[in-house]
Amino acid sequence: MKNNARIAQVGKPRIVIIGGGFAGIQLAKALRKADVQVVLIDKNNHHTFQPLLYQVATAGLEADSIIHPFRKGFESQKNFYFRMGNVECIDTEKKVVETSIGSVSYDYLVIATGAVTNYYGNEQIKKNAVPIKCIEDALALRNTILGNFEQALLTEEEDELNSLMDYVVVGGGPTGVEVAGALAELKKHVFPKDYRELDFVKMDIHLIEGTPRLLNGMSEEASQKALEFLKELGVQVWTNCFVKSYDGYTVELDNGKKLITRSLIWAAGVIGSPIEGIRPESIIKGRRLKVDSCNRVEGYENIFAIGDVAAMITENTPRGHPMMAPPAMQQGTLLGENIQNLLTGKPLKPFIYKDKGSMATIGRNKAVVDLKAFKTQGFFAWFIWMFVHLISIVGYRNRLVVFTNWLWSYFSYDKGLRLIVGKKENKVTDSVL
Amino acid sequence: MKNNARIAQVGKPRIVIIGGGFAGIQLAKALRKADVQVVLIDKNNHHTFQPLLYQVATAGLEADSIIHPFRKGFESQKNFYFRMGNVECIDTEKKVVETSIGSVSYDYLVIATGAVTNYYGNEQIKKNAVPIKCIEDALALRNTILGNFEQALLTEEEDELNSLMDYVVVGGGPTGVEVAGALAELKKHVFPKDYRELDFVKMDIHLIEGTPRLLNGMSEEASQKALEFLKELGVQVWTNCFVKSYDGYTVELDNGKKLITRSLIWAAGVIGSPIEGIRPESIIKGRRLKVDSCNRVEGYENIFAIGDVAAMITENTPRGHPMMAPPAMQQGTLLGENIQNLLTGKPLKPFIYKDKGSMATIGRNKAVVDLKAFKTQGFFAWFIWMFVHLISIVGYRNRLVVFTNWLWSYFSYDKGLRLIVGKKENKVTDSVL
Repeated sequence: MKNNARIAQVGKPRIVIIGGGFAGIQLAKALRKADVQVVLIDKNNHHTFQPLLYQVATAGLEADSIIHPFRKGFESQKNFYFRMGNVECIDTEKKVVETSIGSVSYDYLVIATGAVTNYYGNEQIKKNAVPIKCIEDALALRNTILGNFEQALLTEEEDELNSLMDYVVVGGGPTGVEVAGALAELKKHVFPKDYRELDFVKMDIHLIEGTPRLLNGMSEEASQKALEFLKELGVQVWTNCFVKSYDGYTVELDNGKKLITRSLIWAAGVIGSPIEGIRPESIIKGRRLKVDSCNRVEGYENIFAIGDVAAMITENTPRGHPMMAPPAMQQGTLLGENIQNLLTGKPLKPFIYKDKGSMATIGRNKAVVDLKAFKTQGFFAWFIWMFVHLISIVGYRNRLVVFTNWLWSYFSYDKGLRLIVGKKENKVTDSVL
Repeated sequence: MKNNARIAQVGKPRIVIIGGGFAGIQLAKALRKADVQVVLIDKNNHHTFQPLLYQVATAGLEADSIIHPFRKGFESQKNFYFRMGNVECIDTEKKVVETSIGSVSYDYLVIATGAVTNYYGNEQIKKNAVPIKCIEDALALRNTILGNFEQALLTEEEDELNSLMDYVVVGGGPTGVEVAGALAELKKHVFPKDYRELDFVKMDIHLIEGTPRLLNGMSEEASQKALEFLKELGVQVWTNCFVKSYDGYTVELDNGKKLITRSLIWAAGVIGSPIEGIRPESIIKGRRLKVDSCNRVEGYENIFAIGDVAAMITENTPRGHPMMAPPAMQQGTLLGENIQNLLTGKPLKPFIYKDKGSMATIGRNKAVVDLKAFKTQGFFAWFIWMFVHLISIVGYRNRLVVFTNWLWSYFSYDKGLRLIVGKKENKVTDSVL
């Protein structure tokens, strides 16, 4: 950051963090008392609470209530600087990050770039499917869902109608299960009142999972109960099943079955999002960066990776840690401590993941929770899910607004948010109005 | 709506309302018990509470909390049908509205298309200024404001810096006064904490008004006090002053003065938004439709206009009623009654405007209120302003969310909403980072 007089602490070691997800903000926070200069670079001006993206997509929450501006979050941390920009590449020789807003030099670099949607190399699906990985995705999905029903009112042709009213969700992990459940709740409580002219018996929601069971990372009980809850809600679940192709209209499954939909929601997996300039040998399967037990990227002294993009291969974690918030946050916190150890010549502490369990919600009063101490499903699990997510959301204001929205939805059986905003493509070919 | 089996009440008189603003929804509501078919056409799927758009633009409210979906609002009104589409023109001979989603026939047509931003024919200003008339405008303005400061961090060139930090608001009506006040509040309480590296003494906010005083439609006391409040907040007010040109960077005023800004916020006036197919003789000054005392468009038997687009020229209203929510709502309600009178052969009632007064807010604890019974300015006025706006917002959920946000902002001195979403143009030419 040569010539930038506004960054005052020029004499101090500069730690540049790329990405303000769970890992990046925990690290920045953990460095609050360190005698360093912390520079966070992100393409957005806000942290996104990804676990609730699906509620933004399904009209349950405002986009604003699950994001938190970095500048607000760190307003009292004197050694913190934020710059909004896209990282283009890094030069590890010169110790410089090249971005859309200029070059940023570093003493220590931390790659916390997270993950992106994995289409498994299928360009056709990538082009036609709807992802659900960032705020823009979530808002686009909401626009699509609401726009589809407006269009459905204009046709009486059976196939066209089905393509607009049916949804196919791919991926039986927490996101897929949560989206399918939320769509089923909308079908049950909201859409029939909104679109009285349509027959919602015709609305099919399919959930497709490649392995034999849903919520693969959770217990058998959780999988079983999630399946039961989804079936109760009318979701058609297809396990052991892959999507072969999708042209924007017809979904072809590997078992020969065909489904038609204008909206294939893709929650089938993620891959790491490393940055250009890292030596290829350190990028392993799933495009993650191979790190040692202290999150140092293999082959580098002063470059670290944390969160989804980091793969710490150990005996217990042959494929790295799960790509979820808890390991990312724990790695961020520990690396903050370790960078201070480095600077003061103390030994580094290896990372040990404290698995506190996992959970997913399916719908009103329905969730599954696997904790260390116990497993539970149903109403109590749903209550735990809500409590854990509420206290995890960044920002007091956000907690208040999300809580208000949830209370409102619960007692009114309504989801208030039906703003279609931005460009409105009109795909209607045969209007009967 | 030939062939559309989903609209069941085909035998009944069809009233087509174009536009779901204050006038349109009041009319639809007033027809709830009528033995007719009410069809509302709007390009959006929601009503917008325009008086609070400026708070969406200045990070005080979520977009979702000031819109209300038509389908939600009318879910229990059996004779109501909504179709989302753009109206292209009308054929008054065939009694058909041509829209982007097809043709819609009518027995009675009500034009409630409101108003659009008036650039007084200046194409250069239209191209470069930022309007504030719909949700998309408000969100774009918010993006611009937040994006400007991110860019300001990257330059040390004095003129460039000023162009990014300074704001020029044109139009001293309620919207202009409210935007200028909200920007001043952000300058005072929010931005200095967010952008510690910038010197906010350099942020200038200009408000430009063509006539000798602000809030022309209100009392002298209100004008005077609004000016005082704005000056206290550091806003530079220029009365008797017009914008001659704006190229996206330099604002030239008719008094010779030049200001530089990347953001000229245009709240200088509106003109009616009539639709194609109405005979030119009925479109008068300001592009409004000349209507009789029952809101019937001159020259037609079965076409009415209500709200901002309607000009009812009488002795007391030589230029029509003010283009604001109250006359629009009152006209909508009365026309609902009059259409039922028409259908039952009863005489129509002429419209008499009940002026309940007007108000504007300038900032925290500061507003001006002119009511019939009394005038007041300051804290109590601000309290009245909040109360009136809260009870006027459509939708109970919206009231709750807006109230929560206001309470939060009041006690935290913060505006929580700083989501920059959508395309991020990077205009930085000389990055010093």
